[in-house]
Amino acid sequence: MDLKQELNKRADFFNQQLEKFLSNGQPETLYDAARHLPLAGGKRLRPCISMLSCEAVKGDIIKVMPLALALEIIHNFTLVHDDIMDKSKIRRNTPTVHIKYGEPAAILAGDLLFTKAFEAMHQITSDCTIFKNIEYGFIDCIREICEGQQLDVEFEQRKTIKEEEYLEMILKKTAVIFMFSAEAGAILGEGTKEQTNALNEYGKTLGLAFQIHDDYLDMSSSLDTLGKDIGNDIRNGKKTLIAVHSLNNATGEDKKTLEKIFGNQKATEKEVKQVYNLFKKTGSIEYAKKTAENYCNKAKKTLEILEDSDSKQILLALADYSIKREK
Amino acid sequence: MDLKQELNKRADFFNQQLEKFLSNGQPETLYDAARHLPLAGGKRLRPCISMLSCEAVKGDIIKVMPLALALEIIHNFTLVHDDIMDKSKIRRNTPTVHIKYGEPAAILAGDLLFTKAFEAMHQITSDCTIFKNIEYGFIDCIREICEGQQLDVEFEQRKTIKEEEYLEMILKKTAVIFMFSAEAGAILGEGTKEQTNALNEYGKTLGLAFQIHDDYLDMSSSLDTLGKDIGNDIRNGKKTLIAVHSLNNATGEDKKTLEKIFGNQKATEKEVKQVYNLFKKTGSIEYAKKTAENYCNKAKKTLEILEDSDSKQILLALADYSIKREK
Repeated sequence: MDLKQELNKRADFFNQQLEKFLSNGQPETLYDAARHLPLAGGKRLRPCISMLSCEAVKGDIIKVMPLALALEIIHNFTLVHDDIMDKSKIRRNTPTVHIKYGEPAAILAGDLLFTKAFEAMHQITSDCTIFKNIEYGFIDCIREICEGQQLDVEFEQRKTIKEEEYLEMILKKTAVIFMFSAEAGAILGEGTKEQTNALNEYGKTLGLAFQIHDDYLDMSSSLDTLGKDIGNDIRNGKKTLIAVHSLNNATGEDKKTLEKIFGNQKATEKEVKQVYNLFKKTGSIEYAKKTAENYCNKAKKTLEILEDSDSKQILLALADYSIKREK
Repeated sequence: MDLKQELNKRADFFNQQLEKFLSNGQPETLYDAARHLPLAGGKRLRPCISMLSCEAVKGDIIKVMPLALALEIIHNFTLVHDDIMDKSKIRRNTPTVHIKYGEPAAILAGDLLFTKAFEAMHQITSDCTIFKNIEYGFIDCIREICEGQQLDVEFEQRKTIKEEEYLEMILKKTAVIFMFSAEAGAILGEGTKEQTNALNEYGKTLGLAFQIHDDYLDMSSSLDTLGKDIGNDIRNGKKTLIAVHSLNNATGEDKKTLEKIFGNQKATEKEVKQVYNLFKKTGSIEYAKKTAENYCNKAKKTLEILEDSDSKQILLALADYSIKREK
């Protein structure tokens, strides 16, 4: 089984629906701004997870498409607004919405995507009570993403963060929507309570593995290749699991050095390298790698209760991919 | 009957529910930022309209409270994001959210309010199909508000606007939520189809009267009192009904003068006064007043099919107030 091919097959099917759903409207600029990011590509991981979950419980994939649309659209809404907050200029190899259309149109485009996500939800054809429960879960999920994003912003200003706090932040910011994608896909596929719970846990641990591997990826590549990003993250005091672990485990002079340089906007190239070496010395890069592996293993274990199927194999391969991918 | 007293009675009851509903949460800064504007006061017109509509069809007011919450919260969400776009510094006599908490927190606070509005909707206890229809109407309404706000921004850059275009803009930006408040209040109050349609039309025409009177208010007060606002609107080329009418009806030299000064950021005090006098000369200030009066009369006429009641009298008085209020 070729994971990439299997995901692409589903993403292609999904993209057809997305393009139809995000059709043009008036005023044109607003709709162009709203379509810009979602139609610029992306892995469509959340829709794929919801589709695979539905398939894994032998559900009808057509029933899950409104959910898949809502998931991808709300994900893009968060990206459009996050990019304004972070002043990011490029995403998916194209200018961010606020760079291309200006900030006012980008705020509004995000708001319109938010609206469109709920419009998509309303295409769910299942029983009204099921619809209501799923939509309520979706609302909860968006609330947690907002909270997670705010925590992420606040953590940059704080000296130290406990590992539990870091985990709560990435759970909300990243993992909760993976969790919801998998769980709601299983519910719409009419899975049993046991299957639905297992897929909820799968999504959660997969999301955590993904985010921690992201942190790891940025730091593990050679300082020459990713030098700029590493430098920025260190100068901004970005609280990745690696940084959190190192700040909590360094002692003596090392701790002082870390506290002095980490989060200092004016840190020199040499100082950035010094911090990077301290991250290695405290075993923090290795620690993040191990932690991501643990979550990946947990994710795979939760699938044991499912009957074997193609979709189960793809979900297992996706868990492995979450800690092996190189970008 | 004292309109102010009747509205305050309902607003007070509503405010108790709102304060309970927008309770604190974590991270505190995010929740503080989200609560800042909604708890800083306001007339609570949209909740009051939904409550009065429900009462006018002899419905149970408790059933309408989740809708009332959703309406006020989504209204505040639009204000928080609009204030960022317009760079406004003060609202309800207090610093705007982005001035007090910074722009990133203000974008997120708006997004959280958006989420909370849907959370409120989910407290509707009516039959699931009714809930679904009302929520879908709400989604439609938010989409139109986004479109209206974008039109408003775009109109400032355009030389002339047709009156129909202006009306479409204020319909979406302002009137649609009044329309929805009245209609959905009647649906939750279990009104007949005829009553619901009448209250939909009432909300729409009331909203149009309100917005046009707003335009009129800004221009009708003496140039000394409101000098700054008038000057800003004229320099920014703000397309009020007065400006639209004047630009479409001035001829010869007057038209040239208008086109030269209106929308010119560098217009002098003397030039601003010149435009103001042209607005009077083309009869545009008077025209806006008449147009608002016509919508007010239409609003009152739609209520004829309702049995007489206290709430009907209040709705009638509210229509009169919409074109008589002085702030």
